[in-house]
Amino acid sequence: MAQRRVGLWLIGACGGVASTTALGLSALARGHTPTTGMVTALPQFRGHDFDEPAAFVLGGHDIRKGNFVTAARELHERANVFDERTLAACAGDLETWSANLRPGVVYRPNAAITALADRGDMRRANTAREAIDAIQGDLKAFKAANKLDQVVVVNAASTEPPFEATDEQKSLELLVPALDRPAPAALPTSGVYAFAAIDAGLPYVNMTPSRGATLPALEELARKRGVPHAGQDLKTGETLIKSVLAPMFARRNLRVLSWVGHNILGNRDGQVLNDPDNKVSKVKSKDLLLAELLGYKPQSHVSIEYIESLDDWKTAWDHIHFEGFLGTKMMMQFTWQGCDSLLAAPLVIDLVRLAALAQRRGESGPMPHTACFFKSPVGVTEHDFGKQFQMLEDYLVGIK
Amino acid sequence: MAQRRVGLWLIGACGGVASTTALGLSALARGHTPTTGMVTALPQFRGHDFDEPAAFVLGGHDIRKGNFVTAARELHERANVFDERTLAACAGDLETWSANLRPGVVYRPNAAITALADRGDMRRANTAREAIDAIQGDLKAFKAANKLDQVVVVNAASTEPPFEATDEQKSLELLVPALDRPAPAALPTSGVYAFAAIDAGLPYVNMTPSRGATLPALEELARKRGVPHAGQDLKTGETLIKSVLAPMFARRNLRVLSWVGHNILGNRDGQVLNDPDNKVSKVKSKDLLLAELLGYKPQSHVSIEYIESLDDWKTAWDHIHFEGFLGTKMMMQFTWQGCDSLLAAPLVIDLVRLAALAQRRGESGPMPHTACFFKSPVGVTEHDFGKQFQMLEDYLVGIK
Amino acid sequence: MAQRRVGLWLIGACGGVASTTALGLSALARGHTPTTGMVTALPQFRGHDFDEPAAFVLGGHDIRKGNFVTAARELHERANVFDERTLAACAGDLETWSANLRPGVVYRPNAAITALADRGDMRRANTAREAIDAIQGDLKAFKAANKLDQVVVVNAASTEPPFEATDEQKSLELLVPALDRPAPAALPTSGVYAFAAIDAGLPYVNMTPSRGATLPALEELARKRGVPHAGQDLKTGETLIKSVLAPMFARRNLRVLSWVGHNILGNRDGQVLNDPDNKVSKVKSKDLLLAELLGYKPQSHVSIEYIESLDDWKTAWDHIHFEGFLGTKMMMQFTWQGCDSLLAAPLVIDLVRLAALAQRRGESGPMPHTACFFKSPVGVTEHDFGKQFQMLEDYLVGIK
Amino acid sequence: MAQRRVGLWLIGACGGVASTTALGLSALARGHTPTTGMVTALPQFRGHDFDEPAAFVLGGHDIRKGNFVTAARELHERANVFDERTLAACAGDLETWSANLRPGVVYRPNAAITALADRGDMRRANTAREAIDAIQGDLKAFKAANKLDQVVVVNAASTEPPFEATDEQKSLELLVPALDRPAPAALPTSGVYAFAAIDAGLPYVNMTPSRGATLPALEELARKRGVPHAGQDLKTGETLIKSVLAPMFARRNLRVLSWVGHNILGNRDGQVLNDPDNKVSKVKSKDLLLAELLGYKPQSHVSIEYIESLDDWKTAWDHIHFEGFLGTKMMMQFTWQGCDSLLAAPLVIDLVRLAALAQRRGESGPMPHTACFFKSPVGVTEHDFGKQFQMLEDYLVGIK
Repeated sequence: MAQRRVGLWLIGACGGVASTTALGLSALARGHTPTTGMVTALPQFRGHDFDEPAAFVLGGHDIRKGNFVTAARELHERANVFDERTLAACAGDLETWSANLRPGVVYRPNAAITALADRGDMRRANTAREAIDAIQGDLKAFKAANKLDQVVVVNAASTEPPFEATDEQKSLELLVPALDRPAPAALPTSGVYAFAAIDAGLPYVNMTPSRGATLPALEELARKRGVPHAGQDLKTGETLIKSVLAPMFARRNLRVLSWVGHNILGNRDGQVLNDPDNKVSKVKSKDLLLAELLGYKPQSHVSIEYIESLDDWKTAWDHIHFEGFLGTKMMMQFTWQGCDSLLAAPLVIDLVRLAALAQRRGESGPMPHTACFFKSPVGVTEHDFGKQFQMLEDYLVGIK
Repeated sequence: MAQRRVGLWLIGACGGVASTTALGLSALARGHTPTTGMVTALPQFRGHDFDEPAAFVLGGHDIRKGNFVTAARELHERANVFDERTLAACAGDLETWSANLRPGVVYRPNAAITALADRGDMRRANTAREAIDAIQGDLKAFKAANKLDQVVVVNAASTEPPFEATDEQKSLELLVPALDRPAPAALPTSGVYAFAAIDAGLPYVNMTPSRGATLPALEELARKRGVPHAGQDLKTGETLIKSVLAPMFARRNLRVLSWVGHNILGNRDGQVLNDPDNKVSKVKSKDLLLAELLGYKPQSHVSIEYIESLDDWKTAWDHIHFEGFLGTKMMMQFTWQGCDSLLAAPLVIDLVRLAALAQRRGESGPMPHTACFFKSPVGVTEHDFGKQFQMLEDYLVGIK
Repeated sequence: MAQRRVGLWLIGACGGVASTTALGLSALARGHTPTTGMVTALPQFRGHDFDEPAAFVLGGHDIRKGNFVTAARELHERANVFDERTLAACAGDLETWSANLRPGVVYRPNAAITALADRGDMRRANTAREAIDAIQGDLKAFKAANKLDQVVVVNAASTEPPFEATDEQKSLELLVPALDRPAPAALPTSGVYAFAAIDAGLPYVNMTPSRGATLPALEELARKRGVPHAGQDLKTGETLIKSVLAPMFARRNLRVLSWVGHNILGNRDGQVLNDPDNKVSKVKSKDLLLAELLGYKPQSHVSIEYIESLDDWKTAWDHIHFEGFLGTKMMMQFTWQGCDSLLAAPLVIDLVRLAALAQRRGESGPMPHTACFFKSPVGVTEHDFGKQFQMLEDYLVGIK
Repeated sequence: MAQRRVGLWLIGACGGVASTTALGLSALARGHTPTTGMVTALPQFRGHDFDEPAAFVLGGHDIRKGNFVTAARELHERANVFDERTLAACAGDLETWSANLRPGVVYRPNAAITALADRGDMRRANTAREAIDAIQGDLKAFKAANKLDQVVVVNAASTEPPFEATDEQKSLELLVPALDRPAPAALPTSGVYAFAAIDAGLPYVNMTPSRGATLPALEELARKRGVPHAGQDLKTGETLIKSVLAPMFARRNLRVLSWVGHNILGNRDGQVLNDPDNKVSKVKSKDLLLAELLGYKPQSHVSIEYIESLDDWKTAWDHIHFEGFLGTKMMMQFTWQGCDSLLAAPLVIDLVRLAALAQRRGESGPMPHTACFFKSPVGVTEHDFGKQFQMLEDYLVGIK
């Protein structure tokens, strides 16, 4: 039997996470790197029908110039994160995959994000429908040209500002006719891409805080088309730590008085988040879980600042002020110095594997067993990382 | 029906933890303080037959001068941890309970610990048996004089050096005759007190790293006498954090390269631990759980240093160096600034409540559901705090 | 010869710094506390004609209810910073001095500051002149009633928003007639108080970032009246550290790429600074010295957030990213956990002593030798703490 | 006039500092890197007759296999500190200089250091005199073969244990005859190399805590031969910070109660320091300056631990506990994450330039103006970095 071939389509293909994912898949397939950082490679998950690194073919959209090779090299030059030998060994794969890249489709541009757009051949759509058609054309061509058994679409693009869902966005019936309307926009950019993927029957993973497939009308579409999807906002650093520390304070009945988290970073994500509108999504996503984990709302403050020199090295300082027995106030502080793209990329591979597996198993809708990957897991209220991880273990044990 | 009266007998009654426990129980009974820091007071555990604060009568042994009042005041003067009004309101209770204090019995003294002994009326025993008899005499008198329904004995004394169990200490049959021998000592001091308590049918809780009831012969005795016991070494700070962070690294497949933990503190515990022999117990207890939580042994280093000015404020710095995807090295650091006695005292109350409940339910032997309280839980290999806490929840749900 | 009697008039007398200054002067006079934290008490400055603690009589203005006793007690209850015995021993002095307190005069109110005003007997002035007259009346009455040889006025009130000096504020000749005009206001509140003090011949010390006597017209007035004055914005924590670390990076030719400083605090200062307008003054004052110390402007970010639970305990985290030889990026981080009022109060006493001494020596205008006390020293461009301190040593050696 | 040619002879030529120095000098000469990290390149020191990077020719001794090329590459592979393009551009120079390397001469081996020795052609000497002769032979051959105007010898070898100077080591007259004696050893290895250099009229710089030229007999020799020398123990990280922070606490009259410094690192220096005997030198050197800077001795603790994964990235955590006004205890903490070799190498170049300059100016003996470079500056008791730097500025201004 021929090996399965799985397409991984990255929206935001020239970003740090996407290019690291590409480099990583090539390095794994060539045996140049161990599986460190990949959850699906843990010993307890051995024996599952996860796609091997060599099974993947990559492609994607971007509104910026460049390709997997230049993006990986640029990230390395700024943040000094890769090994020269790995870069050299994998350059061929990255070049091959770069041929699958397509210019982004611009429909309802966000100022902070489009400030980054420098690709001359971007396509402008007058309606959401036009954008969806163009995107689906790219996805179908990718699948056909590469003889792929499955294609998983991943949103790795910059963060959009938050918004309240409109009535249309809450009902597929109302949404569909609105897609043909030039203005106001029926869907944000992330929604347009998510619609295109799901409507084409392709699993969709949203690693950003953008709404993507979380709009009720899109969730409805996913159920209707029988498509699994997962999101939103990867939990890779400060929030991951929060999701293990906060339950500890709760279980010891130590009262958190205040929790302050300051994040500084200098990559493109940080640049977009420097725009106050776009930042709101992220801060909200990082902040909301405290009250759910503690059972009350302590004073909290989360900041994200763009500090250019840090590049991809996200650095966070958290100060937790808590009250113990007899009212005594105590403190815990932590700093986190992690490389954002390197933390996210293996999780992208994990989620693509899990989404492809779910599709083969005929599952549709949100994938609650992926809650441990996200700051705002779709359809799951549990934020305790330990319990979320148990959900993943239970799911995988159940299908073994 | 008259309220139950429960005795709490503290070995090391003039230490910070014991005096804070006394002050806390009085303050709780008088409604001067909330139950912050007490696990048994969590909302999910409401409705259980835990003894109310007002049910407790306190007593104890110490080899140092002083009583609950002077010890609490001294701790406050050094570490500035209490509220003057609480101290004033509770002084009467502490004085009443101080009348139950008895001089320690010295049998096999440890140099670092006896350097602290300044009580003129300490009793010296020539054999373990003599010491056990004297201790049991005190315990029985305490119970009778105060008309107590139950008495729980808690080891809150200074840490002893570690040692390998002898053949005698592994078999009750061999141990019993050896108790009458002047030398070599059949049991360390902590073992003598544990034997006295368990042999008298009293539940025993060991909050220190000393061996106490963990010697096989004493475990045998506990089964034989039908006595529940719990230990060892309360998990209150740095190790508690380790037990939630290490599983997170493991689950994300992030490879911990090294984990360094430096602890500084200035209380009596720190003074005794400054003795290299005594320190070994603590360091060992703090270090062993990493390998079990991670599945491999990273390089690790734990230090404890006595820094007088910190008094009861234990301060820890941990540096965790880990490898992520594609071999990239990243760092997490945390500092913990907690007040040791205030962190430990509510857990002492929790454990006494759980031990008294277990005795009433006819349980005997180690109490595995208390694993989440200890660095080295007797009879339990699970070190993941989340899973240990689940064991407590399951136990309490099961008996509701 | 009778001992000199020196009045210390505190604007913002019910704040944390003022009440700590009062408590400290009383405790020093009564021998209850050593001179720790006081620069003028350093061994190298012995033998100078500094006023003894017992020489001081305190008074002041505030727009909030309360007095030195209630303010000191309130600070202690929130932040747990004093010793009960000191509070008790000094209560009498604080009560005596509280009789000298007068309601604030409101002329050009700032929203964030007046939100704190709760004193019913505040006097409203229609013009700056009316306000100045009322303030001078209080100052003269204080001096006469207490038979004082000198009175030093200290601005310890909340921080005002920054502003550009008007033409009037740059010329005494233009300013004086404008004082009689109801609107627009000729001077901000801090300027009104500074004018009143200096015009009355009293030395003026500005420990806040408010403009106070730094307006050119007021500097002119000080020269004309022969009055010494000092300011502005006490350097007590994060900025103090900056002023010793930045010169080190400069001297080692290590290139600072970015310097991020996050400050959290929960006292009234923090509350007022939570207002974005008022915060600007402080952030600006904390930020500007980097470029002067380094010789270039690295990316920098300073935040101040009001975190209620911290009360007077200002906590700062600074992250310094720097480039070394061969372009290698390195990091230094520090956290500062200091009690704001306790850090500021001894410096207030120092500055009052230095201002009274300068007046007795017939000096007038800014006191450049006090640069080491301030974030934005008037008339001095040197920000290196070591060099600033040398200026103080040179001054004091010179007059010995 | 032909350009001066200056030899730089590195004892410990295959270590991280030596190979970084070599790479740096080549990169500077080729214009591949700016002068960041070099004190002698500061704007205020422009115009002095410092040797240009292109003037240097390198050579050295080592007891380990390898050369400048392999050592630089190995450091990069472990610690990821260089730029591939710089490594490639400079490889030719490093190879050329590697031809000047000579096997170390072993006379009185230290166990921890010789454990690292793996070079087959090391020469064993039976007496100090034999060793000195062999070393001088190498130095003279280096000078002659490369037509060098001057040669500066730098001790960049591993740290030796501390010891008390013998009577012989205190008097040149007693020392000289003892050099011919097989045992006991008249000089430690660092002393043998220092003697060889100074006796041959070559300036000597000691960047380690080993005794080197600090023995009185060797200082005597330096005066006699008219040779300048400098040392000891470069101040590059934690101690550098101490030397700017401690004066700040002193000047503000804030009483340091305790100062704890924990250092972790994983390079060869760390490996040698892991040996308790060798560690003592370093800890002593790092600790002694506190008492001199503060005027009293607070409780202090310094640890250095070998943590392999950190390689050249020395990480330090310092906890400073201090008392402010009215006895309030406060805290400052800092962490330092610096790359040891990259911090030290530019200072090596600075010191070689300063030593060569001093020799041309006819100076001899210790170079007190280099105090700001060292933890234990020879002949200088000033430890305040700001004042030490002033000494350098005064010296250079004076000779301009």
